[in-house]
Amino acid sequence: MLKELAEKIIKGNKSAIAKGISMVENEFNGYSELLKLLYSHTGHAYLIGITGPPGAGKSTITNNLIRLLVKKGYKVGVIAVDPTSPFTGGALLGDRIRMQEKELDENVFIRSMATRGSLGGLSAKCKQTSEILDASGKDFILIETVGVGQSELDIAQTADTTVVVLVPESGDAVQTMKAGLMEIGDIFVINKSDREGSDALGVALRTMLHLKMKSDSDRETPVVKMIALRDQGTDELLDFILRHRDYLISKGKLEVKRKEHLIKQINELVTSRLENNFWTDDRKNILRKNIDRIVQRELNPYDFAESLL
Amino acid sequence: MLKELAEKIIKGNKSAIAKGISMVENEFNGYSELLKLLYSHTGHAYLIGITGPPGAGKSTITNNLIRLLVKKGYKVGVIAVDPTSPFTGGALLGDRIRMQEKELDENVFIRSMATRGSLGGLSAKCKQTSEILDASGKDFILIETVGVGQSELDIAQTADTTVVVLVPESGDAVQTMKAGLMEIGDIFVINKSDREGSDALGVALRTMLHLKMKSDSDRETPVVKMIALRDQGTDELLDFILRHRDYLISKGKLEVKRKEHLIKQINELVTSRLENNFWTDDRKNILRKNIDRIVQRELNPYDFAESLL
Repeated sequence: MLKELAEKIIKGNKSAIAKGISMVENEFNGYSELLKLLYSHTGHAYLIGITGPPGAGKSTITNNLIRLLVKKGYKVGVIAVDPTSPFTGGALLGDRIRMQEKELDENVFIRSMATRGSLGGLSAKCKQTSEILDASGKDFILIETVGVGQSELDIAQTADTTVVVLVPESGDAVQTMKAGLMEIGDIFVINKSDREGSDALGVALRTMLHLKMKSDSDRETPVVKMIALRDQGTDELLDFILRHRDYLISKGKLEVKRKEHLIKQINELVTSRLENNFWTDDRKNILRKNIDRIVQRELNPYDFAESLL
Repeated sequence: MLKELAEKIIKGNKSAIAKGISMVENEFNGYSELLKLLYSHTGHAYLIGITGPPGAGKSTITNNLIRLLVKKGYKVGVIAVDPTSPFTGGALLGDRIRMQEKELDENVFIRSMATRGSLGGLSAKCKQTSEILDASGKDFILIETVGVGQSELDIAQTADTTVVVLVPESGDAVQTMKAGLMEIGDIFVINKSDREGSDALGVALRTMLHLKMKSDSDRETPVVKMIALRDQGTDELLDFILRHRDYLISKGKLEVKRKEHLIKQINELVTSRLENNFWTDDRKNILRKNIDRIVQRELNPYDFAESLL
């Protein structure tokens, strides 16, 4: 059964991919066996993270990139993790699917990931979903997240190339810096670049990027001007993405980056297993029995946690 | 030494509080001993979480609340965890401090928490900081976070009362719902309520809050209109906060809520200890030796993690 599902996923069967991702999302029986079967078929896809503040136009840019990549003959997977995006959440996914023509339908797989309720574990699930898409033969996987929360930034950073999308209205460059976006961008996009303030933002961005550039760095971070709603700048953006990929490969940096991501993934796997093994019924009972004493300040949570260990 | 520091904190000494928080933030030697010494002095402060999208005016509302609370004779602690706020980050904290008069200076302690670089652990550190402020005799602790990321929402939710701040421009009510803000708010604020769209947002909010209200619920979630920049509505907001506190206490719900928060805190403590204990030099070496085989797809991360355990 699992082997059959894995084979179908590897052949690119859409309903098998959807089923596999659901297994992972809901941690159904056998989901980790499935991931094990698929893992040797991964490593081909190139992961592009697209992040930025709410309302910057990330979804439009993602859609433009999908179309361009498909036109060039590539197969594309998309993972949308954006709590503020109207595209996120099953109910509204239809909006996005409706705009697909047949060619898109055959070569694109789009999946939204629920961010609410799934306390933690989101970044692990996002990684596992990208493995399924990777194994299914996608050439590029776009991961769209809103770059405000720490966990969302972490997800964008599991990509090979991270694109940070800004708009003149999204606040000054100092706010961008403070929001941690400055550190994670391999490419910056100024979207809605026909609006006022776009030149000033460009100058401020370039200055700050130049200032933070390490003296041993051999690459200047590009800033691309776009008007995504008119599909202006998509070619240039893709060009910069591919150039960044070539740069990473030629310098041996892609392997280093992926190694770091794998280490992070293994850390998360270990933690979740440690937690599951630790919280036996016995320990849960001890916690239940003592919680009132901690509430009453007879016992402190630090000593209690140590006594459990 | 630690005992002395704890005693000074309990007396409300400002530099001792700052030192204690720095110990916790940087996990300096003895920080958990300090928390143990302080724990029996906590439980007095009432925790108010203030969250909402960037630009909604959370900092202004927080400042207004600080002034009002101090005027009423209360001691106030503030923890600002907002990656997009200009108040967050040491460099710009001065802006906030400069507006303080002597009375504020004596009764208020404000601390910004860095969110970048501290992968995870932020919610634990926020909780521990609030314990230090609590032990120092603060009556109210305001925790200001930007409500977009999952981890930031989690932090807001460690409060006794969670206030969600919206503005007419911050997107429609559906987006608010999707962003998970609808579920966590005990009180909603429509800030900048003189602007267009504020009535429509109010109607939509009330409708949705009413729809999601459980049939056994005995409390309607209030929606407060404010113009924070003109300090309009602060009294009403505080009134609703105090009424919510009375409601929680009279129904025995405050203890239940705090118990849940404690369980979450203990879970986090356990996880961080499990991780520290697990990653011995030996295991780190095994990981280092095998990571290339995983990159080469000879081994998958799932089997590898299991073999480590």
